Order: sequence, then C-alpha cells, then structure tokens
Amino acid sequence: MDVKITLDEKSMPGEWYNIIPDLPFDLPPATSPRTGYPIGPHELEDLFPTALIEQELDTKRRSAKIPDAVRDIYLLWRPTPLCRAVRFEKALDTPAHIYFKYEGVSPSGSHELNTAVVQTYYCKEAKVKRIVSGTAAGEWGIALAMACKFFGIKCKIYMAKAGYDQNPYGRIMMDLWGSEVVPSPSAQTKPGQKALSENPGSPGSLGLAISEAVAEAAGDADTKYSLGTVMNHVLLHQTVIGLEARKQMARAEAQPDMVVGCVGGGSNFAGLSFPFMQDQLKKTKTRFIAAEPEAVPSLTAGTYAYDYPDADGLLPLLKMHTLGHDFVPAHIRAGAMRYHGMSPLVSALYDNKVIEAVAYPQDAVLEAAIQFAHCEGIVPAPESAYALKAVAEQALACKDKKEKKTILFALHAHGYFDLSAYESHMAGKLEAIGSPAEQISSALTRLPRLQAEGP
Amino acid sequence: MDVKITLDEKSMPGEWYNIIPDLPFDLPPATSPRTGYPIGPHELEDLFPTALIEQELDTKRRSAKIPDAVRDIYLLWRPTPLCRAVRFEKALDTPAHIYFKYEGVSPSGSHELNTAVVQTYYCKEAKVKRIVSGTAAGEWGIALAMACKFFGIKCKIYMAKAGYDQNPYGRIMMDLWGSEVVPSPSAQTKPGQKALSENPGSPGSLGLAISEAVAEAAGDADTKYSLGTVMNHVLLHQTVIGLEARKQMARAEAQPDMVVGCVGGGSNFAGLSFPFMQDQLKKTKTRFIAAEPEAVPSLTAGTYAYDYPDADGLLPLLKMHTLGHDFVPAHIRAGAMRYHGMSPLVSALYDNKVIEAVAYPQDAVLEAAIQFAHCEGIVPAPESAYALKAVAEQALACKDKKEKKTILFALHAHGYFDLSAYESHMAGKLEAIGSPAEQISSALTRLPRLQAEGP
Repeated sequence: MDVKITLDEKSMPGEWYNIIPDLPFDLPPATSPRTGYPIGPHELEDLFPTALIEQELDTKRRSAKIPDAVRDIYLLWRPTPLCRAVRFEKALDTPAHIYFKYEGVSPSGSHELNTAVVQTYYCKEAKVKRIVSGTAAGEWGIALAMACKFFGIKCKIYMAKAGYDQNPYGRIMMDLWGSEVVPSPSAQTKPGQKALSENPGSPGSLGLAISEAVAEAAGDADTKYSLGTVMNHVLLHQTVIGLEARKQMARAEAQPDMVVGCVGGGSNFAGLSFPFMQDQLKKTKTRFIAAEPEAVPSLTAGTYAYDYPDADGLLPLLKMHTLGHDFVPAHIRAGAMRYHGMSPLVSALYDNKVIEAVAYPQDAVLEAAIQFAHCEGIVPAPESAYALKAVAEQALACKDKKEKKTILFALHAHGYFDLSAYESHMAGKLEAIGSPAEQISSALTRLPRLQAEGP
Repeated sequence: MDVKITLDEKSMPGEWYNIIPDLPFDLPPATSPRTGYPIGPHELEDLFPTALIEQELDTKRRSAKIPDAVRDIYLLWRPTPLCRAVRFEKALDTPAHIYFKYEGVSPSGSHELNTAVVQTYYCKEAKVKRIVSGTAAGEWGIALAMACKFFGIKCKIYMAKAGYDQNPYGRIMMDLWGSEVVPSPSAQTKPGQKALSENPGSPGSLGLAISEAVAEAAGDADTKYSLGTVMNHVLLHQTVIGLEARKQMARAEAQPDMVVGCVGGGSNFAGLSFPFMQDQLKKTKTRFIAAEPEAVPSLTAGTYAYDYPDADGLLPLLKMHTLGHDFVPAHIRAGAMRYHGMSPLVSALYDNKVIEAVAYPQDAVLEAAIQFAHCEGIVPAPESAYALKAVAEQALACKDKKEKKTILFALHAHGYFDLSAYESHMAGKLEAIGSPAEQISSALTRLPRLQAEGP
C-alpha cells in the first residue's frame, strides 16, 4: 500500500463545491447594520470585485468553475498529497487508520494560497491596482503577497502586532514577495488610531487588522480588500482540498469515519470537510470535528448571533459563533486562531449539529504536534497542532474501544515559519491559557443589537 | 503537459548507483597520513559501522541495495517531484527548457536526509548508541537529528559558530528532534580548544566542526561519527535523486543537455548528476556544471592534492580540490558551502574534465534565487541559489544563441530555515565577497606533504 496517495495533474478538480444549496437549513444571510436587511451585491462593491461578490452571495449553484489562469498557478503545487500516518498510528498504538491531507506543500506553506490566488486573479480581471488585507500570524499575508506578485498587483498587509513580533520569518516572506507589512494597530487608519489610544501596547487581533484594511480599501477606488477566511467565497475556494481528498480516499479504498480540522475562521476545516458532507448532510454517518483553542473558544464558549467580522464594525453583520467583535484574544502562539468569530457556514453547521467542536490548551496541542513530527517528519503549524490533538484523542479512544475507525485530518500548514512557537514550548515558556470566561461575557454584552430588532 | 512529473512509490529506485566502477580513470584512494598507504577498512572502524566502510571502499559493484527499513523512511517524502520551471523560463524569455529536481519536500528541508537515514540505520544495526557529527549551516544537522530520532539513537552536533548565530531556526529544528547542539569551536574537544586559543572569536568552519566530532567519536566505543557530504558512501546514497530524475526526464520525453548543481562538499550535485553520467562517461554529450561561491572556490581556485577533510588533520587524507584544511572561509550566508575541500569523486571528475565549474559572489546568486521564487513560489536555500545563478546564465546564453537546450538542475533544499539570509540581502547587508587569493595561497603552503613523498 502506498503511504502517499498522489493525484496526477489531470485529476485536479475543475470546479469548486458550493455547499450552500445542499444545506438542510437556510443559511442566515449577511445583513446590513444600517438597514437590518440582507445585503445586496452593491453593498460589497467598494471592497470586492464583482466575480467574488457573485460567489459570496450564490445560494443556487452547487459548483463554480476554476478559471484557467488560477488552475495554472494551482499546478505549481496541486494536487497536494494525501498521506497515511502509519508511524503516528504505531506510536499511538491505535487500531485506527489515520490519513492527512497535506497543504504545507504549497509554496506559501499553507492552504491559504488556494484562495489568495483566486481573489487576486479576479481583482486583476477587474483592473484593481492594489489589495489591502489583514493577517494574524502571517499565513494569510504570505499567501496574498505571493498571489499579488504572481498577478502583478500591489499588496499591503496589516499584521496583528502579536504575530508581527512573534513571527519574523512570516514578515520576511511578505517582504520577499514585495508586500508592504504594517504592524496593527497602526497610526495609519482610524480604527488603528482608536485602538492605540485605548491601549498603546495592544497586541492587536485579526479582527482589528481587518478593520484597518477595510478602512483603507473603502476610501480608494483603485484598491480592493481581501479576506483569508470566514466568508463564503473563501470557503468555496478551499473545497479544492476536500474534492481532491475524496478522490484520494477512494483510491486508498477508504472512507473517513471522522474528518478533523483546526478552526480559526474555519476555512481549512471547511475546505477539507464540505466535500465529504455533500452526500450525507441529511443522514450523517461521518463525524466532523473542529478543534479550537481554549483561549479563543468561539464555537465551544461563544454565542450564535449576528456580529461584526471586524473589530471596528465596518463590515456587514454575519450570523456566527462569536466571542464579541471587540474581544482581544490572549497571546497564544497559533496566531491564526486569535479570531473572535467563526465563518457563518461553519457556525450554522455547528448550530445544526452537523459538526462537533472541541477546545484545547496550547501546551497540550504542541505536545501532540511534536509526537507527530517525530513520527512523520513534518512539523505542523502551531494552528494545525489543534487538529493533531483531536486526532490523537480520537485515535486513543479507538484503542480503548478496539475500534478500527478511519480518521482523516487537515494538516493545513507546516510550522517552518513559526518554529519559535516550538522553541518557546520546549523552553517551558508557553502557558496553558484557559477559557477567558469573564472577558467573553463582557465582550458579548457589546454585540450589535440589530438582529434582535429586525428590519 | 504536466509541470510536475511525479513517480509512484513503486517506481522509487531499489538500489543506489556506485559510479566508481564506471569511471574512465582510477580514483585516487584515501590514504593514511601515518603510513602513506591507501587505508584499509580497519582504519575507519573507530568512526563508521562496517556496512558503511564497505560502501566507502567499494570500487567493484555498480549498485547497492536500499535496505527495506531505509526505504520505509524514504517513502515519507520520496520519490520527490521533478518540475518544469515554465514561469521562470518565461521570465528569462529563454527558449531553453528548465527542469528542477526538488529535494526541499524532504521533512528535513534538504537532500541530506537521504544519507542521514542510511547512516543512522547502519549504526542502529551495528548497535551504536550515539552519533556525533558536524554541521555548517544546519542542513546536515537537522537531517541527522531527524534520522537519529527515527531510529532511536542519541545525537550530538557541532555546528559552525557562524551558522549557529545566523540560523536559529536550524538550531530549533535540531532541538525539536532531541539532538544536543554545540557551537564550534567549543571548549569540549581538543581541536575546539586549540581553535579558540588561536582565535576566541572564530566563526568556525565545517572542517573544524568535523574535527571536533571526530575527536569525540574516536574516543568512545559506543559512539560513531557521521559525515553529510564528501565521502564516497554519502554520494552513493544521494544517487537516489538522479536515478529518480532519469525516470522522470524519460517520462517528460526530455534529456538534459546540461545538469547543474551547487557544490559545497559535492553531495547534492553528485546525487543528481552521477546517474546521468553513467552511459556517457567516455563520450560525454551532456555538460555537468558545478556552481560554487567566489569566497570559497575549491574547484575554480583551489589545488588538486591530498589534504585532510577536517581542519585538525584527524581523518585520512583525501585527494581533492582544496583550499587547505585550515582555510577559514568568510561569513557567506550559504553556510553549507563554507568548506575548504571537495569530495574526491567530484574533484577527480573535474580534474578529468568530465564536469565544469563556475564561481559567483553571494549577492548575485540571491538575486537569481529571488527571481526564481517570484516565478515558481519556492524560496531556494541560499546554497541552491548558486545553482540558480548558473542556470539563469546558461538560459540567457541559450536566448542569445537561439538554442532550445534542456537544463536540469538540483534544487536541493528550501530556504525556509534560513530566511534571514534573504532579509540581510534585501536590507543591502550582504557583501559580494570575492576570491580570497592571498588567504588561499597561505593555506595551501600548509598542505600535508605525504602525497609527494609516497609510502
């Protein structure tokens, strides 16, 4: 049996999968905080090119064609391998079979390039000159910088200060691809100035970096904004992961009993799992498990309500599991998981009990990641480590119950740009940060009221 | 046409290729500095397990079987992809076709894991408890640390101080795989003490790190020494690269007119090129081009003579292109190329005009590497950048001459553990260090005299 199940380039999917028409429930729409009504395309035109707005609001078509120019770039690294973690199984002494879909072979080091290339392509088609965005730990920033270089568009990234300080290699990568990188909060935008005046030492957050980028993009006709997770079109682009994995699992003559991924905004988890939900949304046999940090527990300890996806309330309201848009997360090392909300699609699937969620402290997850690295050689990104912990837990449960289950998980990124997280862990410097219950309660009191009032 | 030519696991070579029986000349043997005679197996027994000594001295058999346990580990990342650099060709506007064999998909990030796994396996079979070695910038140290963890052997690495200071991520990787890492020169060995007494601020060198490791291993029955390049058995193990690439080029229905690689000790260049030399050593049509730094020009400005492979003269003499064993190279960022010598096989092939050599300054090579990254997405290791510069030069020559040549090069490692080299370059902090002619002349006056005197 092969341990790496590869696909040839011809077998790369030609279309992405849109899960929305298949949902057994209605997805609450993005809503204007001004009118209380669902937004129309024109309310997004300042920020996104038309093609992306159409994808964002498309509730009818099950698929969207991957443009040829995007496909050409995808082929630099796609299809990505599906691997059987034989040595990790042995180390856990489990009867479970563990497979992982490895997106770390992407030149940006993570799955985020899958959507960065698409968004940049549509901007180029729409003659956009410049893209501004926000990143937490840098995964998204690297991907967008790279995609902008490929298509010849200028790029500026607001990077949450915690990530900016902790992840110098992420910054160098963005520099190398010619992007401007600014630590957030910055003095360059109104949301940044406001945050700095409230707390000059603020570590920032993805939500705040997004606000800064949105504020800058909205005021400039040649500039668009770009988001690396949360929104429907981003999750759509990521389904290329799961569509490939379905073919590969079929080749391995295996079907997953569990699909596991870490969740920050939800895009890598969705990308792998949605294509596996396609046939079984009404009668689910497969378990879908989302793993998140105890320190930023939007699914396991947040509330399901309309909230702003950005800290400063500039974007339309989304119904999501949220900790409150002005929640400032602790300095955990998995920077991409320091986000107050969760994508509306993943949130609705969780609310409808299609998926499950678990939360872990950061020291335990890095232990699981190191055990995996020692077996399989790959150092997972600190974010992927949450998925590893959930996988190890399920595999050990299989051992206890003597069950030969098949577990598939998303290894969405390698950890080579953020090895200092492992250095801190090995030096005993990473605390097990628990759920910040009081801070969450407080932030939730400041949720926008609109959804209660209606239009 | 596919841009990535993959091989399935079944097509991975089952044997390595030993070029020595096919050479159209006699390879000068390793020689004892004590007796002046070629060494026998017993003179290596303190340092290496028997199986590796047999491979080192084997001048008869054209192939050696890859053990099953090694094959199992190889399959974590092998076969590696062969890629057509279509976008790089376009950027250079060349009629040449450029292919690269990418070893950066290895979990250690470089080709060095190909031999680390083998050496560690044979040590394990020989019940060795501990391996000590030297590394320059960390590529070899990471690979050996990883291999030792796979086989459950303790590992200690002397790392040239220049690399230790410049490449913290390399250090973290070795820590992560449970190895002890000591900056060299250190106070822990006699060669280290001697070097420190002569120059307390010494940046070290690979040659000196090797001396420290050899000194420690020679005095301990449970400990063996391990070398990541230079020696015949190391180059043998690396031929898995070229054997795969031959199959892949055949699949692409292409044959290389030029095979290009960077050379430090010579192992990645040999690994790719030797299998392509196999059929044409007597009547060569393909050009084989080795690229090295102007600052450490062992082929282009060294002499071909018997010299010590380590700085302190503890190992047997090897006939090689050398700058003198006590030559201390400048602080160039491609740490793995800071080595005074060159493998005897690569040296003999150069002396016999089977291969060519070129030398470049470090700033120019990083420019070529950045151009490649912007096209193909992959950031080359600062060492691979020398190969990139040679490839770009040849491709531009093809453009001038309107020749549609096929160029194959070794992209032996990614640069993600050493991004600070690019940071320094972008900040304008990397000097173009030229050939240190006076220092070389001086070091060459201190070559051992034995080869002139004979036995």
